[in-house]
Formats: sequence, structure tokens, C-alpha cells
Amino acid sequence: MLVKSQVKYIQSLSQKKSRDEEGVFIAEGPKIINELLSTSNLGLVQLYATAQWTGQSPQTQAGTVIEVSEQELERISLLQTPNQVLGIFRKPVFPKITSYHSRLTLVLDTIQDPGNLGTILRCADWFGVQTVVCSRESADVFSAKVVQSTMGSITRVQVLYEDLAAFMQQQSDIPAYAATLHGTDLYTMQPVKEGLLLIGNESKGLRDELIQLCKNRITIPRIGQAESLNAAVATGIILSHIAR
Amino acid sequence: MLVKSQVKYIQSLSQKKSRDEEGVFIAEGPKIINELLSTSNLGLVQLYATAQWTGQSPQTQAGTVIEVSEQELERISLLQTPNQVLGIFRKPVFPKITSYHSRLTLVLDTIQDPGNLGTILRCADWFGVQTVVCSRESADVFSAKVVQSTMGSITRVQVLYEDLAAFMQQQSDIPAYAATLHGTDLYTMQPVKEGLLLIGNESKGLRDELIQLCKNRITIPRIGQAESLNAAVATGIILSHIAR
Repeated sequence: MLVKSQVKYIQSLSQKKSRDEEGVFIAEGPKIINELLSTSNLGLVQLYATAQWTGQSPQTQAGTVIEVSEQELERISLLQTPNQVLGIFRKPVFPKITSYHSRLTLVLDTIQDPGNLGTILRCADWFGVQTVVCSRESADVFSAKVVQSTMGSITRVQVLYEDLAAFMQQQSDIPAYAATLHGTDLYTMQPVKEGLLLIGNESKGLRDELIQLCKNRITIPRIGQAESLNAAVATGIILSHIAR
Repeated sequence: MLVKSQVKYIQSLSQKKSRDEEGVFIAEGPKIINELLSTSNLGLVQLYATAQWTGQSPQTQAGTVIEVSEQELERISLLQTPNQVLGIFRKPVFPKITSYHSRLTLVLDTIQDPGNLGTILRCADWFGVQTVVCSRESADVFSAKVVQSTMGSITRVQVLYEDLAAFMQQQSDIPAYAATLHGTDLYTMQPVKEGLLLIGNESKGLRDELIQLCKNRITIPRIGQAESLNAAVATGIILSHIAR
């Protein structure tokens, strides 16, 4: 059974401010919930599940699962089609980063679409990139849509929000690569073992201020006529060439 | 001024059935409208535009622009934030395809998310792929969300809907490449000048039945731990390696 204060609390977590204050986020559906339950760097706060899920669920700590009806799940779900289980988790904890040397890091200049951000995190996870640094204006990685679209990568890829110009200046001894429309042909590049790869906003691209802080510019050669590539696709293509 | 029958007609075009019967689709916003107006393989039926747009619009045939107020545009727009102009266009006309020899063609097995389909079409357009063959269960390329996310590529990339198993059997003399999780390392492949590249559904991947019809299987090697890549990202990565 759900009480009113629980409904209110869960609904409040659709707001970034509430998620930040509480240090938690929401995930939904058996696939991602089971994946989150199996990882060790985040804690389960509470699960709200229908009998369908509790009947075949993985073992969880006593008291963490509240059984709800389909109708109750509908009241708290952010999905169009609620899917058996909704969970509140503490945000994952990662070791503090002491150095950006000897690895490839993604730097995102204001990716605004949550689906794009989630897709980029999956890409990073696929290609072994462990850290993604976002400008403060970017979508929140713990918004419901990002959580759903990362398919669990949020537990493995650390996402930081920084003032990017200041961050780039602090890391000026790390080679920086800007993804732009007029740079070095991607296909002529060697794998990058240490660097910052900068990807720009969906419609505006990278800010000039940031491009100026990059010694290297990368371009994906165009064969046809499209004006641009989707930011997540561009990230995937560049990583597939330089991250191996 | 908008009359009621116009509002009703425009709203009906959010349905695939109505779009198919009328042979038209809707696009919104100055950027894509201006791009569609400048292409020659589709015809303008009607534009509904605010004074802000008509004041600086490209030249259009007499009678094709109806000026509307912001409030009227809101009534007919499918966007959350209506943007100056909504246009009804006839679907683009492409020459009939007589052969799939000597070129690379994308074959999509039930891409269901309109955003993914649009992103894939932009990718195809970027890498010079002129034809995309979709299973009949795929998202409709003329749905509003695909039109917006292709950024004009729908005027350059021809999209066909076919029974894919039958299509593959008809084209059995064209080399077919299935994107799967257990195939040849993409990075060892040579560019493909003639072939069908098959990409599977977002969650289920390619149907076995279709994989069986492909002599070649391609895999993007995984370095990290993500379970899978987004379908549009995978398409972009594979095209970036084989379409150059």
C-alpha cells in the first residue's frame, strides 16, 4: 500500500533540485532495476513493485520492497507504460579523480537532450571511457530519461559537472581534441591513449572559447550531404576510431 | 486566419493513415521549412506562418502562405514550443530503384523510435547512402518527430518499406552484412562498395531469420562494459568504417 507522503516524495524526485538534495534518483522496469541491484557502488533506498515482479525478484534487504497494485504504480511512474517496478537508489559513488593523465576523457559542452546524454554515456561505457565531464548547463544524468536510456552505464561511467573553461585550463597539460566541422580527418588519426575529447551542443556545436583551448581539431569526413551528425552518433564514431 | 476545417485537417496529419492517403507530411520551424522550400523533389501544399516568419521568408508561390497568429499556430503545432511556421509538403519523389548493385544500402529491421530513425537517416545522408529499406513494422519516416530529427535528410535519402525477408531473397546476389554482437571485427574490414547493411531493432536486435540470409556478420568490438550500443550510434560507427 502506498501512502500519500510516499507519492509526493517520489513525484518530487522528478525535479533535479530534489534529487540533488536527497542524493537519490529513480529507475523503472525490471531490466534496469535488476542491473542496479547487482552493482555495488550504489545503494537501494526503496522499491515499489507489483506482485508480478516480487514473485520473481532477486533477493533484496528486508523492508526495501513495498508491494503496490498496478494502479498505484501508475500513480508514481514517470513512464507512459509503467513496468512492474520503480526503485529509488542512492547516486553511485566513484573514487575521487586525482589525474586525467593516461586515459581518454569525454568533455560535453551542453548536451541538452536527455536521450542524447544517455546514449553518449552508453557509448563511453562501450569504449571504456570512465569519466564524462559535462558543462553545468547540460542535461542532468539522473533525470529519468537519461537513467532509462543509459541501460545501467551510469553505474560505471562517472559524470561530473564543471565550468568547462576553468576545467580545460586546469587540465592544460592533457592533449585536448575538439570535434568540429573543420579539423584533421578522423581517419588519419592514431589511437589516443591520453586526452580530452570535446563534443559540442546539438545545435550550436562547441563554443569558440573552448575550441581555442584545444590544440587538436577532429572532423568526421562527410561523403554525402547531411549538414551535421547527431552529437551521440558523432561521439560514437570518433571513439570507435581513437579509443581502441 | 485559420478556419476550423484547416485545423482539423492539419491535426489529422499526425496520423500515418491520413498522411498516406493524402501523400503529404508536416514540418515545423524556419530552419527545416527553408531547407524543404529549397529542394526540388517535393512540393509545397501550404504554409501557416506568423508575421515574424512572413516578414523574412524566402519567396513562395502566391497563395501558399496563410498568415496566422501565435495562438493559432499553437493550435495546429505538434511542437511543445511552436516556432513561427508550419508547412504541409507533398512527400518527396525519388527515381525508381532498378538495381542495388554498385552501392551500399541500409536495411533496418524494425527501428521503432522515431528519433532513432531520424538520426539513422541523417547518418545515411552524411555517409552518402542513398536508400534505406525498412521493415513494415518500423517507425514512419513522415511522422513529425522523424521529419524534425532528420534535418532535411528525408529529401535526399529514399526510404522504402518492405517485407525484409522477401526483399533479402530478391537481392540475394548483393553481399549482405548483419550487424550483430558476434561477428567479424569491424576494424578488420575493407570498405564496402556494394552491399546491404542490416541493423536490428533497438532492444531485440536483428531477427534470426534475417541474420541467416546474411553471409557476413559485423561486430563493433567492445572495450568497456556496456551491454549494447544505441542502434543509430552503431549504424554511424559501422558506416564510418565501411562507407568511405
